[in-house]
Amino acid sequence: MIGTPVEDLETPAIVIDLDIMERNLEAAASYARQHSLRLRPHTKTHKIPALGKRQLDLGAAGLTVAKVGEAEVMTRSGTPDLLVAFPVIGASKVARLLAVARERNVTVSLDSIEAANGLSEGAVAAGMEIGVLAEFDAGLHRVGIRPELLFELVEAIDRLPGLRLEGIAFYPGHIKKLDETASQEIAEAGRLLDQVLNRLRERFPIGIVSGGSTPALWRSHEFPGLNEIRPGTYIFNDLNTVLSGACTFEDCAARIHTTIISTAVPGQIVLDGGSKTFSSDRPSAADEVIYGQLDGYPDAKLFRLNEEHGWVRIPDNSQFRVGQRITVLPVHICVAVNLQDQVYGVRGGRVEEVWRVEARGKVQ
Amino acid sequence: MIGTPVEDLETPAIVIDLDIMERNLEAAASYARQHSLRLRPHTKTHKIPALGKRQLDLGAAGLTVAKVGEAEVMTRSGTPDLLVAFPVIGASKVARLLAVARERNVTVSLDSIEAANGLSEGAVAAGMEIGVLAEFDAGLHRVGIRPELLFELVEAIDRLPGLRLEGIAFYPGHIKKLDETASQEIAEAGRLLDQVLNRLRERFPIGIVSGGSTPALWRSHEFPGLNEIRPGTYIFNDLNTVLSGACTFEDCAARIHTTIISTAVPGQIVLDGGSKTFSSDRPSAADEVIYGQLDGYPDAKLFRLNEEHGWVRIPDNSQFRVGQRITVLPVHICVAVNLQDQVYGVRGGRVEEVWRVEARGKVQ
Repeated sequence: MIGTPVEDLETPAIVIDLDIMERNLEAAASYARQHSLRLRPHTKTHKIPALGKRQLDLGAAGLTVAKVGEAEVMTRSGTPDLLVAFPVIGASKVARLLAVARERNVTVSLDSIEAANGLSEGAVAAGMEIGVLAEFDAGLHRVGIRPELLFELVEAIDRLPGLRLEGIAFYPGHIKKLDETASQEIAEAGRLLDQVLNRLRERFPIGIVSGGSTPALWRSHEFPGLNEIRPGTYIFNDLNTVLSGACTFEDCAARIHTTIISTAVPGQIVLDGGSKTFSSDRPSAADEVIYGQLDGYPDAKLFRLNEEHGWVRIPDNSQFRVGQRITVLPVHICVAVNLQDQVYGVRGGRVEEVWRVEARGKVQ
Repeated sequence: MIGTPVEDLETPAIVIDLDIMERNLEAAASYARQHSLRLRPHTKTHKIPALGKRQLDLGAAGLTVAKVGEAEVMTRSGTPDLLVAFPVIGASKVARLLAVARERNVTVSLDSIEAANGLSEGAVAAGMEIGVLAEFDAGLHRVGIRPELLFELVEAIDRLPGLRLEGIAFYPGHIKKLDETASQEIAEAGRLLDQVLNRLRERFPIGIVSGGSTPALWRSHEFPGLNEIRPGTYIFNDLNTVLSGACTFEDCAARIHTTIISTAVPGQIVLDGGSKTFSSDRPSAADEVIYGQLDGYPDAKLFRLNEEHGWVRIPDNSQFRVGQRITVLPVHICVAVNLQDQVYGVRGGRVEEVWRVEARGKVQ
């Protein structure tokens, strides 16, 4: 497989431009160094231990995952540190987490006393200690305790045996587009963070203040007190990142290579990738219903997906033929990678790396 | 794992009620027998050879798949016959298809001379013969040649060496909801089919006339000349099938079992399954943006998904607690199954079967 010309790969396939990926990795590492931010990249985007290792080699302090199953896989990167940015609920998952924590520092972010209690019980029974970040809601209104209740949660974590209070966390996922609204949102989240930290630090040792997403990545230094970022998508970027204003098309390392399988319907071509290849995610910062951007055909619109069919509207489809290859920038690369068993790293038109997506499907 | 109480399974997990599934399988087999329709179920829904075998045991003439990779896996069901309902494009995929065809009858549906030529070349070089169905567009406007060009395509298939013209195929996927519009659409597709068949049969031996989807399943006998159906979703059914009018909630065999991981935001609970568990498919026959229906909470609305978070709006969330289990009927079970490594068959509250989703991720 190594050395294969990219145009000989069977489609659909996810292809990574290694030069762009390496530039993206270095840019974020350099930004974090410049602003003295701890970088703990979220591996949900690539799900590949070998890429986690590259992030560590470039100075990442640890890696972030969403589920215990991803944590188990990411131990293969050799990371000394893992943040599970998701409450770990239930005795069997806590037991799996503790097994991972035997050989490295493990931290969990959570937003409830119930989650803290379960973790504490498991850790005490195992004679271990787990790090905890208390998560608060900085404006996304997804998970995260209301700021006015954060003090009480931090107090409980600090008191519970088997838990090591490491700091606080938030996810500014409501900042989807870097415009004037975003500047207000960043300022507001910043004010909130400042208040919260002033009150907490009178009483507790708050070491880590963890935030950051890919859209807001390059403005992380504007959040007062923030000292850790955990972006994920930046390694590859995607149409969402472009639409957010956080990168350009030239920074997008991943493409889905497809083949035209039908030109039978006038004004339309059909690709051999649908929702089982792209996912059915639509852009998060735009109202338009599209599922990707075709390279070289700005007028083409990937407007509908079935499971295995991608429907493309195009003013004139007579220039296309069945069997022709089309490369597409996906809307959301994280969920697309999760649908593949492997992805290909390419340089100079040839396959240089074949990575198994080892942490795909680890929903538990 | 066998014998485990269903409430002890880690979440998120897909759980199949075996009694309902068996009733669904029998109902479709009985309908096909009653109307002398050949049943070639689409295995895209379950992706499990053991379930393909059950369909064969109940009288299915063969199995349908979407991709060559799925065909390779479905050989493990022991099926004597496979229909690949998708054009197989490119020499390497044709070679893989021919390997599958060495031990069983294999048929491909296609809509272009290019696809027919590629298949013919491969088959001739291997000294083999592949069955072909010419696909025409019965109103969905996805793939399928326009009816007025079908004669020419059938002529080419009939002439090309290595190809065995078996008949024609269409997919009435535009019939999404069984209402008055559907009756008109069925009548119109029926008239079209009648015209097409009259003209073709003057010259060619058209054995198989293959159509059918799950929404239109129980009205297949209304299509004149139709003699084969290939429904997929009927084995489990889902919210889409309910909304189409083709089944009731009582016929839905699959649920996604989840756990509440946060109640921190008032008026909302958050489940431990998001787009990597449910997929981000929205209902195909309704405008409402929902991603599933919670059992027992008709007022709850699963209104947004992130990758690992399911956001549920609920008038009063004080009755819920972190750690509580919630079961959800997914919008589209086929894409949800594709996201899991395994699914559980349950009877009387206990796990009776654990199936690996062997054909998941086979996009090529």
